[in-house]
Amino acid sequence: MLTPLFKPRAVAVIGASNKKLSIGYRIVQNLMDYGYKGPIFPVHPKDPFTINFKAYKTILDVPDEIDVAHIVIPGKYVPMAMADCGKKGVKFVIINSAGFKEVGGPGAELEEQVVAIAKEHGVRVVGPNCQGVICSDPEVRAYCNFTFTYPTPGNVAIVAQSGGVGEVVNQRFSELGIGVHMYASNGNACDVSIPEIIRYWGTVDEVKVIVVHIESLSDPAEFLEVATEVAAKKPILGMKTGRTAEGAKAVASHTGGLMEKDISTELIFEKAGVVTFRDEEELVQAAYAFSTQAAPKGNRVGIITNTGGPAIIATDELIDAGLEIPPLSEKSETFLKEKLYAAASVNNPVDVLATANAGHFRAAMDALMTDEGIDSVFMTVVTPFFVDNEAVAREIAAVNQEGKKPIIVNLMTDRRQWTGPTNILREGGVPDYSLPETAARALVAMSEYSRLKSREPGTVKKYEDVDGKAATAVFKEAPASKYEFLTQEEAYKLLDAYKIPVVPYSVVESAEKAATAADKLGYSVTIKVDSPEVVHKSDAGGLALDVRDKDHLNAEMARMSDTFSKLKPKWIVQKFMPDATEVIVGAKAIPGLGHAVVFGLGGIFVEVIKDVRFKLTPVTDTEAKEMVSSIKGFPVLTGARGQKAVSLEALYEIIQRTSQLLTDNPQIKELDLNPVLAFEDGAYVADVRISI
Amino acid sequence: MLTPLFKPRAVAVIGASNKKLSIGYRIVQNLMDYGYKGPIFPVHPKDPFTINFKAYKTILDVPDEIDVAHIVIPGKYVPMAMADCGKKGVKFVIINSAGFKEVGGPGAELEEQVVAIAKEHGVRVVGPNCQGVICSDPEVRAYCNFTFTYPTPGNVAIVAQSGGVGEVVNQRFSELGIGVHMYASNGNACDVSIPEIIRYWGTVDEVKVIVVHIESLSDPAEFLEVATEVAAKKPILGMKTGRTAEGAKAVASHTGGLMEKDISTELIFEKAGVVTFRDEEELVQAAYAFSTQAAPKGNRVGIITNTGGPAIIATDELIDAGLEIPPLSEKSETFLKEKLYAAASVNNPVDVLATANAGHFRAAMDALMTDEGIDSVFMTVVTPFFVDNEAVAREIAAVNQEGKKPIIVNLMTDRRQWTGPTNILREGGVPDYSLPETAARALVAMSEYSRLKSREPGTVKKYEDVDGKAATAVFKEAPASKYEFLTQEEAYKLLDAYKIPVVPYSVVESAEKAATAADKLGYSVTIKVDSPEVVHKSDAGGLALDVRDKDHLNAEMARMSDTFSKLKPKWIVQKFMPDATEVIVGAKAIPGLGHAVVFGLGGIFVEVIKDVRFKLTPVTDTEAKEMVSSIKGFPVLTGARGQKAVSLEALYEIIQRTSQLLTDNPQIKELDLNPVLAFEDGAYVADVRISI
Repeated sequence: MLTPLFKPRAVAVIGASNKKLSIGYRIVQNLMDYGYKGPIFPVHPKDPFTINFKAYKTILDVPDEIDVAHIVIPGKYVPMAMADCGKKGVKFVIINSAGFKEVGGPGAELEEQVVAIAKEHGVRVVGPNCQGVICSDPEVRAYCNFTFTYPTPGNVAIVAQSGGVGEVVNQRFSELGIGVHMYASNGNACDVSIPEIIRYWGTVDEVKVIVVHIESLSDPAEFLEVATEVAAKKPILGMKTGRTAEGAKAVASHTGGLMEKDISTELIFEKAGVVTFRDEEELVQAAYAFSTQAAPKGNRVGIITNTGGPAIIATDELIDAGLEIPPLSEKSETFLKEKLYAAASVNNPVDVLATANAGHFRAAMDALMTDEGIDSVFMTVVTPFFVDNEAVAREIAAVNQEGKKPIIVNLMTDRRQWTGPTNILREGGVPDYSLPETAARALVAMSEYSRLKSREPGTVKKYEDVDGKAATAVFKEAPASKYEFLTQEEAYKLLDAYKIPVVPYSVVESAEKAATAADKLGYSVTIKVDSPEVVHKSDAGGLALDVRDKDHLNAEMARMSDTFSKLKPKWIVQKFMPDATEVIVGAKAIPGLGHAVVFGLGGIFVEVIKDVRFKLTPVTDTEAKEMVSSIKGFPVLTGARGQKAVSLEALYEIIQRTSQLLTDNPQIKELDLNPVLAFEDGAYVADVRISI
Repeated sequence: MLTPLFKPRAVAVIGASNKKLSIGYRIVQNLMDYGYKGPIFPVHPKDPFTINFKAYKTILDVPDEIDVAHIVIPGKYVPMAMADCGKKGVKFVIINSAGFKEVGGPGAELEEQVVAIAKEHGVRVVGPNCQGVICSDPEVRAYCNFTFTYPTPGNVAIVAQSGGVGEVVNQRFSELGIGVHMYASNGNACDVSIPEIIRYWGTVDEVKVIVVHIESLSDPAEFLEVATEVAAKKPILGMKTGRTAEGAKAVASHTGGLMEKDISTELIFEKAGVVTFRDEEELVQAAYAFSTQAAPKGNRVGIITNTGGPAIIATDELIDAGLEIPPLSEKSETFLKEKLYAAASVNNPVDVLATANAGHFRAAMDALMTDEGIDSVFMTVVTPFFVDNEAVAREIAAVNQEGKKPIIVNLMTDRRQWTGPTNILREGGVPDYSLPETAARALVAMSEYSRLKSREPGTVKKYEDVDGKAATAVFKEAPASKYEFLTQEEAYKLLDAYKIPVVPYSVVESAEKAATAADKLGYSVTIKVDSPEVVHKSDAGGLALDVRDKDHLNAEMARMSDTFSKLKPKWIVQKFMPDATEVIVGAKAIPGLGHAVVFGLGGIFVEVIKDVRFKLTPVTDTEAKEMVSSIKGFPVLTGARGQKAVSLEALYEIIQRTSQLLTDNPQIKELDLNPVLAFEDGAYVADVRISI
């Protein structure tokens, strides 16, 4: 476990320095200034002292056992220092020095060399090219980091792939007076990884909420596994940056990792149950709520207010995010009518009026805390000068101590002048926010965590009727070395093997046989060229739709045979099925993880409106349903505007069978079932493209 | 003008009190505490003193001239006090007392009575049921308000329809140390209106940016006129609350105004050039940028950074909002290669590296300030301990003083520990932000203001070929008293009068005449029942599509005649025009203003995807183009996915002719041209519904 890293009993600094503007000086100074509770051992080959303290020539000269050693010397000396740490039995080395994998070439080789030495001696490594770690535990106070923002104790933990982002988030917590328990930024992550840190924090009781920043995942499968496990126990708040092409370019120029403009990280967050943010401020403010409150059991919010406008803003925000503000029970209404002013609104929102005193607020809170139709209490409270606002704050804190349901408070006051109510709330563990939107969004995030946690994951259906051998045969025969795409014939065979319904077809080699096939299938038919060299059939002139009779067929075959004579292609003759609702099912491999599967309405909807929904493989039955029902155009599938309703079951099955096909055959790079023709009683793949 | 209201030479408080928790006490105390520079005259019928000062029995006893008198006595005494104020020649009365229009019935009557007395004497009134005004001008320091947040001097002005929202925004400015010049909350707004206040601030040089909060506009036309005029001179930042049905319900229960879930306010904001916000924090942070910087001339941002992650976040945010981060000129690149570290990135973003000193930052700023391809400079800067960060801040402030292009700075530092750089920036008039997103959004808002300001408004085309008499005749004959909807015949006549192209049609009264009409039009035809009592023709069985020949027509006519025999309807026989791209043009009246016109793709796109764009009448040629081109489905109209491209000119013309129809005929409540059939060479209304 990582306990000795975050709670080291002794820290050495290899490269400790007397130069004030050096990292070697700064780390020693930080440890001292932050009040580190253990011994600090500066190591320097020549200087006898660092600041006021004895320096050791090498770490081997240090008399005590060392849990954490910083290495802040130039890269070329790091292997030797690492070997010394190994001999000394150091548990964790934090390499702050840069010049490793992030600069490529020889730097990458140096990093490999250092990792090998560390492995040989059983030393764990944080970094290189990293800030390090912080632990604010009053018994530890380890600031093993060269930055300068000293967190107050608390129960948030932060791990960031970008040290800059980690630091700015840490600063924001500090500005807002929100406590942080542990912090880590592990730079090139040659050994100790972000998933390992998250797994550890899953076991640390003091950590109530984990904040994680990701630019690109080096091992998405490991992250998914760990995040799923830990998010089931405590909230993980995640932020992925570099989502625009330009942003991703900036990532690539700043880190040693490879990066593409992708959505896979957010899909992984979703699958794992990580609450996802696109804004640091929202993330920080949500962490504040999570750090003090349990997540609500459901979406039903009870609002208490003593003012109009801000309650409206909160209402807009909550409703927009899909939360509910339901009417209160009759019992609550009766109770409130008795306890509040006559002019008060006893509906939800409960408006206690600006003149309400602590007793009125207490009554409103009591009502909502016992009303079974309410899951959380949201208060938007101004502090009129004619009210004893400290008494109101004390009642809120007292109700919060009972811990029945989460409370979020938007306290509108002049914090520079009137500190009383704010301090009472903070000391009482009530999260208080200056603005109604900010408070509302924190509650939305908590509700989202509850939703993610209580999701029915569903089951991954294993279709036993799949013909695995036939599928294997396709890949064996596929000329993968020469062509990126499977031929139509191969692709259809693969779909047949997985019992994915395909529009009835025949593969033929001549116009004559095409006519025979068409007779068998019945007119109209569609004819397509099939050659590994023709990827865009329609553009190349290799597609004839709605071929109505033999003459028509002969004419089209003559035309196309002429066009493609050199390729000696095969031909797909397919039943022409008009009046379908077109949908698409697609997939793209995510290296190291599996595939992202996509569903959407076909044609304009996918290409113009981009109305699609992604999920990671393996797609469960629940997820397949969610994919279909969560697109905006869903009503088109259920019969909106005089459309024919289509078989949703057939679509779910195609998605799940496709998921199984992808899981069994990870060599598939991309797959497009486009269009899939959906009807009232079934759905059939009309065209397919698979690349390997 | 409102100068005596905001800069009163003397203030009286009718209802001044010695009770500490009363409004009458609080206002006197606020004036004193805030350091009001003029005399304060408490008025009380019995108490000889208020706090330490002589109180006058009536305002008539006050020896000096009074610019502003507060009235804080119970409603029933207000008329008398107002009459006294009139006799005294008071210029402005602020009625803080409640119990007027907002409680309805007798309260509304009382308000009317008070307004009448004020008018008679030429007294202007703020309120009733309001907070009042504040002016932070050091020569004035008028806190004519009973709340408790004392703004520091600055150049923001705030006016809010909700006192609660105004106060919380004021508090947020205060917390962030952003100065406010003037503040107003005018409650029931019986006389002095929000537009009047905005118009005044347009003339006040100290006001650089105006913040306005709206729940519902009582006089949208006046607001539009004033906001358009003032926004051309200085930025107006607007927020409309109550956008969800639930939020609007909360509005209705809290104010005297009527409110519906509408988008008209945001359309008015857009037309006037008001920068629109849905989040108070974003609004406040944007105001901070506007209060110190001129708006950029264009969208091209130059970024300077000394760290990776946060610059990525800013990039994501700017690109998402449509801003550009273009490559720098060759000249800039050459200059930067010479001046920066070898490893620095001289591209945009310019990464000066974490070790960059003030000189490096200066060089980067100089390059961007002179690069003609860059409109604004965005800096995301950490403060490494080994850099002289105060020197960096001084260079930024110095470049800012030159005022060449706007600068926005995301300064990432520990503000609790390191105050130097922050203070240098603030004193230098550089807006500094803790988080990259916040800073980026402030720049986005400034760019949006520039875009709004530099928009080509276009011209309102006046179609001279319109037959006004024919239109007038339709409305004269329309049985408006009995039916809400015009008949089809009437509606088509109206469209004909405005030369809005309609699918060729005839109105007939029998099956025989229908057959003759169909012969003339040519088969296929569509037949529709036309009766004022049948609104939903299709649902009622009064629609026959694609009627192919005479037999078919006779059969359909027999069926429908039977169905509607009692109504003695007319029939519309219309050319059946297949293979069109369906679009809709619609309109809804906005009381007191005109109409909102909507354009969208028909069918599923409008009903399921809600892909529509609204504009207010009169719609200019530029706006008509924007309506068509800004829907998501626009590519469908230009030939995406093998669709036929349609005549955009024909659509622009229908929108503009419809706008003229609406402007000339304000009695139209709702209008639906749905569908309009668009083809390569024209567009024709196939069905119409008009309610009056």
